[in-house]
Amino acid sequence: MLQTEDFKTVIEKYQYIFFDAYGVLKSNMGLVEGIGKTFAFLEEQQKEYFIVTNDASRSPKQLAESYHLLGLTAIDDERIISSGMLAKEYLGLKVKGGIVAYLGTDDSAHYIESSGLHTLPVREVTETNIDQVNALVLLDDEGFNWFEDLNKTVNLLRKRTIPAIVANTDNTYPINHQEVSIAIGGIATMIESIAGKRFIRFGKPDSQMFMFAYDLIREKKLVSKKDILMVGDTLHTDIIGGNKFGLDTVLVLTGNTQAKDAETRIHATGIVPTYICENAVIG
Amino acid sequence: MLQTEDFKTVIEKYQYIFFDAYGVLKSNMGLVEGIGKTFAFLEEQQKEYFIVTNDASRSPKQLAESYHLLGLTAIDDERIISSGMLAKEYLGLKVKGGIVAYLGTDDSAHYIESSGLHTLPVREVTETNIDQVNALVLLDDEGFNWFEDLNKTVNLLRKRTIPAIVANTDNTYPINHQEVSIAIGGIATMIESIAGKRFIRFGKPDSQMFMFAYDLIREKKLVSKKDILMVGDTLHTDIIGGNKFGLDTVLVLTGNTQAKDAETRIHATGIVPTYICENAVIG
Amino acid sequence: MLQTEDFKTVIEKYQYIFFDAYGVLKSNMGLVEGIGKTFAFLEEQQKEYFIVTNDASRSPKQLAESYHLLGLTAIDDERIISSGMLAKEYLGLKVKGGIVAYLGTDDSAHYIESSGLHTLPVREVTETNIDQVNALVLLDDEGFNWFEDLNKTVNLLRKRTIPAIVANTDNTYPINHQEVSIAIGGIATMIESIAGKRFIRFGKPDSQMFMFAYDLIREKKLVSKKDILMVGDTLHTDIIGGNKFGLDTVLVLTGNTQAKDAETRIHATGIVPTYICENAVIG
Amino acid sequence: MLQTEDFKTVIEKYQYIFFDAYGVLKSNMGLVEGIGKTFAFLEEQQKEYFIVTNDASRSPKQLAESYHLLGLTAIDDERIISSGMLAKEYLGLKVKGGIVAYLGTDDSAHYIESSGLHTLPVREVTETNIDQVNALVLLDDEGFNWFEDLNKTVNLLRKRTIPAIVANTDNTYPINHQEVSIAIGGIATMIESIAGKRFIRFGKPDSQMFMFAYDLIREKKLVSKKDILMVGDTLHTDIIGGNKFGLDTVLVLTGNTQAKDAETRIHATGIVPTYICENAVIG
Repeated sequence: MLQTEDFKTVIEKYQYIFFDAYGVLKSNMGLVEGIGKTFAFLEEQQKEYFIVTNDASRSPKQLAESYHLLGLTAIDDERIISSGMLAKEYLGLKVKGGIVAYLGTDDSAHYIESSGLHTLPVREVTETNIDQVNALVLLDDEGFNWFEDLNKTVNLLRKRTIPAIVANTDNTYPINHQEVSIAIGGIATMIESIAGKRFIRFGKPDSQMFMFAYDLIREKKLVSKKDILMVGDTLHTDIIGGNKFGLDTVLVLTGNTQAKDAETRIHATGIVPTYICENAVIG
Repeated sequence: MLQTEDFKTVIEKYQYIFFDAYGVLKSNMGLVEGIGKTFAFLEEQQKEYFIVTNDASRSPKQLAESYHLLGLTAIDDERIISSGMLAKEYLGLKVKGGIVAYLGTDDSAHYIESSGLHTLPVREVTETNIDQVNALVLLDDEGFNWFEDLNKTVNLLRKRTIPAIVANTDNTYPINHQEVSIAIGGIATMIESIAGKRFIRFGKPDSQMFMFAYDLIREKKLVSKKDILMVGDTLHTDIIGGNKFGLDTVLVLTGNTQAKDAETRIHATGIVPTYICENAVIG
Repeated sequence: MLQTEDFKTVIEKYQYIFFDAYGVLKSNMGLVEGIGKTFAFLEEQQKEYFIVTNDASRSPKQLAESYHLLGLTAIDDERIISSGMLAKEYLGLKVKGGIVAYLGTDDSAHYIESSGLHTLPVREVTETNIDQVNALVLLDDEGFNWFEDLNKTVNLLRKRTIPAIVANTDNTYPINHQEVSIAIGGIATMIESIAGKRFIRFGKPDSQMFMFAYDLIREKKLVSKKDILMVGDTLHTDIIGGNKFGLDTVLVLTGNTQAKDAETRIHATGIVPTYICENAVIG
Repeated sequence: MLQTEDFKTVIEKYQYIFFDAYGVLKSNMGLVEGIGKTFAFLEEQQKEYFIVTNDASRSPKQLAESYHLLGLTAIDDERIISSGMLAKEYLGLKVKGGIVAYLGTDDSAHYIESSGLHTLPVREVTETNIDQVNALVLLDDEGFNWFEDLNKTVNLLRKRTIPAIVANTDNTYPINHQEVSIAIGGIATMIESIAGKRFIRFGKPDSQMFMFAYDLIREKKLVSKKDILMVGDTLHTDIIGGNKFGLDTVLVLTGNTQAKDAETRIHATGIVPTYICENAVIG
């Protein structure tokens, strides 16, 4: 029997809490039951929190609205750090004009546009405009024809020596209790290997996700990493990423890691959370 | 300047010749110019030959007909060893009934059917028939909807503990001088990694391809591997596979390996052909 | 509770039995208890058998003697197929003179020597003789200084464009109930990756091991693969290799795969044995 | 002919310069000729600079002294950011007591010790103290017996579920014009794969290296990433890491990337530096 700790007792020791979204706050069934009470507790205790999510399919504003629609009004877009934000920052700093070709929905592309950059779905890249394509961004597994546009993407990377950015490092995401969908991160690995190129990946476990949230805190006050707790459901993104950044970590059992597998997987991978809790709910 | 040898002088030393198809006998432009004369020479000299090809999209009979249509009538289906033949042999020996789900064209599936086995495209797997699915075969990159059927394939492999067979180990194939298409071998690697399963792969460089042709020769007469020459355009399938099986090998420069890259690639990979020739044409 | 079948009932259905050695016939503690009775039964029933082993550290003759010393006199060297035999065959067919540099014991090197080839430990490769080195063979994890000779091996492969052969595909081998040793196959993967070269690997799951034994049978009489059973303790060598070659397979639980993990691992990998038996002992 | 730019013209556009060490400032032959003038120019122009190096074999103080001995007195230890510093920070934040087992020299271990932590070479781990081992750190390829201690390390990771940290991501380092040595990063990949564990890696291209230097600047004044230039000789560490962090990058041709290969490698990998310069010397 897996030994778990009480989530409330754990978070009382920390001043700042980072939450993963999917598998911690919500699932394919909607919000995790009772999660609203957790945010009431955090506000009451004046603890600060951020949602740190490998989701580049929408803007933080749209992500926040999705929580509001589910009834979790505590979460506003300034508390959301998404891998899409890092992709957007990268493009703003590093791509000096021209076209950014993308795989994903139009929504996902609209968000990453910056002044001076024009986004274009891969399907609209032609012999005429290909020379202006200065970057490729993989944002979402929907919004394009896999057969046509993945083949076109491989040939784009053979013709143009440009950076390729992946704004989601996950291989799959759950669509119901038994089934998953292939995520853009899984597709990216195939394209990377076939094209022989090295992609730039944003998203947990990469430190830049945690740094982004950490910087938002440090702008206001001096803080030690010892005062921050990362809460997640996935060992190889949330937990190893949080650990590596120097944070204490909680593994919750409401998502990718189930109670019956938790100990086996921790031992098999050597990725050890500081705590294990049933869920992120304060009863 | 790359030092090449005369193809005729090379093959005169061997009694049996194995040819790769794509990049050696034909390309996306049709037959390699003058290749007909090579087969006239082989018949005149009474040398025996086989086509050893990573192509599971059609039956040997259909493959032979495609050469006849191009004007190369020397090649009959008994001289063609395809990776599809190995997949068919595997299913006949190892799958004892039920359904074989497949990704590929209907033609490719029709060929691998054996008595007692029923093939079904992945798109037609349902809750009702999934328990009868006893194997999955990846045959061709065409004939299915990538988005729908690749996601369905991942979930099939999560639900059923069955062997998955890939009958083409190539990652891409050329469609014209500048562009490639993702082959079913490249897709297979993605599915294998996402599902966490170990696939069974047939096709060069695997020894079973060479063994199949070698056995056809040995049925008629005793032969030493020293009397066989493998001719191919690809280092990591034709050449390393032929070398490992103990054959002498010729790299020709009419396909995947171009004259300007040949030496660099040989040095970088450590895959060393016995000879390098411009092409497989006898002038 | 894992459902297993009676080994005797299983083998009665087959005319030819291939056995893995380590984990099936013997362990670090000596012979598997009662295994002698299995070979008495096989002789009584006039079933033919071969030992198919990823062991290149000694000659078949020395391997057979090691069984005799343990009291299993039934096994003679003509019934042993080792990965070292394939390495020896390769060198005889493909390396046309000069020096074969090796990592391993002197015993392991002595066995693979053929007429016209001279073997030399990597530590004795010098500026003077390096140009005569025409192949590198990795045979055993003992018999050399890892720090000095692995570094020297990387530089040898940078200087000479030669084939590198690994005669053991295992990553580790058990030394007692709790501990393992890194095998030459694990070291080979590191060297291959660091040097960027593609190595030639002999040993299960590769088909050539099974083909070697199959050919020995076919020399005497016509046989169908359906009459052959492969018995092994390791899913990713014995079982997937046997399956792919078209043989029925038995997983025994006396070695690498323990009863408590068998089902989980079969499901996780998709490598499915035809049967599972406690051991290869006939009671 | 490769088009390069004048290094002085390039750095005049930036206020802060990050330098890789090996291949940029020094080589196995000593200092890059004329590099002293670069630092004189930087001081004269009041540009700030940091050395960002994947070297965990010594403390920043010892690294600085090694430059002073070579005659480059401009570099003091406060300007050196090493991967060892990140390992030390990790241990201080995340390991709450007990023993840190290490592979490397005693010097490398001494530096990472923090209050409350005791370092112990892997060779001194015994049945008695193994339960107190709370982390494993791979620091340097020297200072231990590869055969004995690598085998011991694999077994330590099988027995203890602890984090394993690698403080150098390089696979090799040059020892003279023609030869390399296997670095601890290359060994780490082998151990990680054999033990099946996920290691925590510090060092370029990981963002935490760049963040460490960036934070040192931000402590004193507000700075945009657009004012920082990363100078390095290696595409897959310095250049992709700098690019991903949002910095402009210079590839210099005095180390791992030679003029004759630069264009080929940039095209093959898709890792594109902002500039290419012959060297980091201001004439």
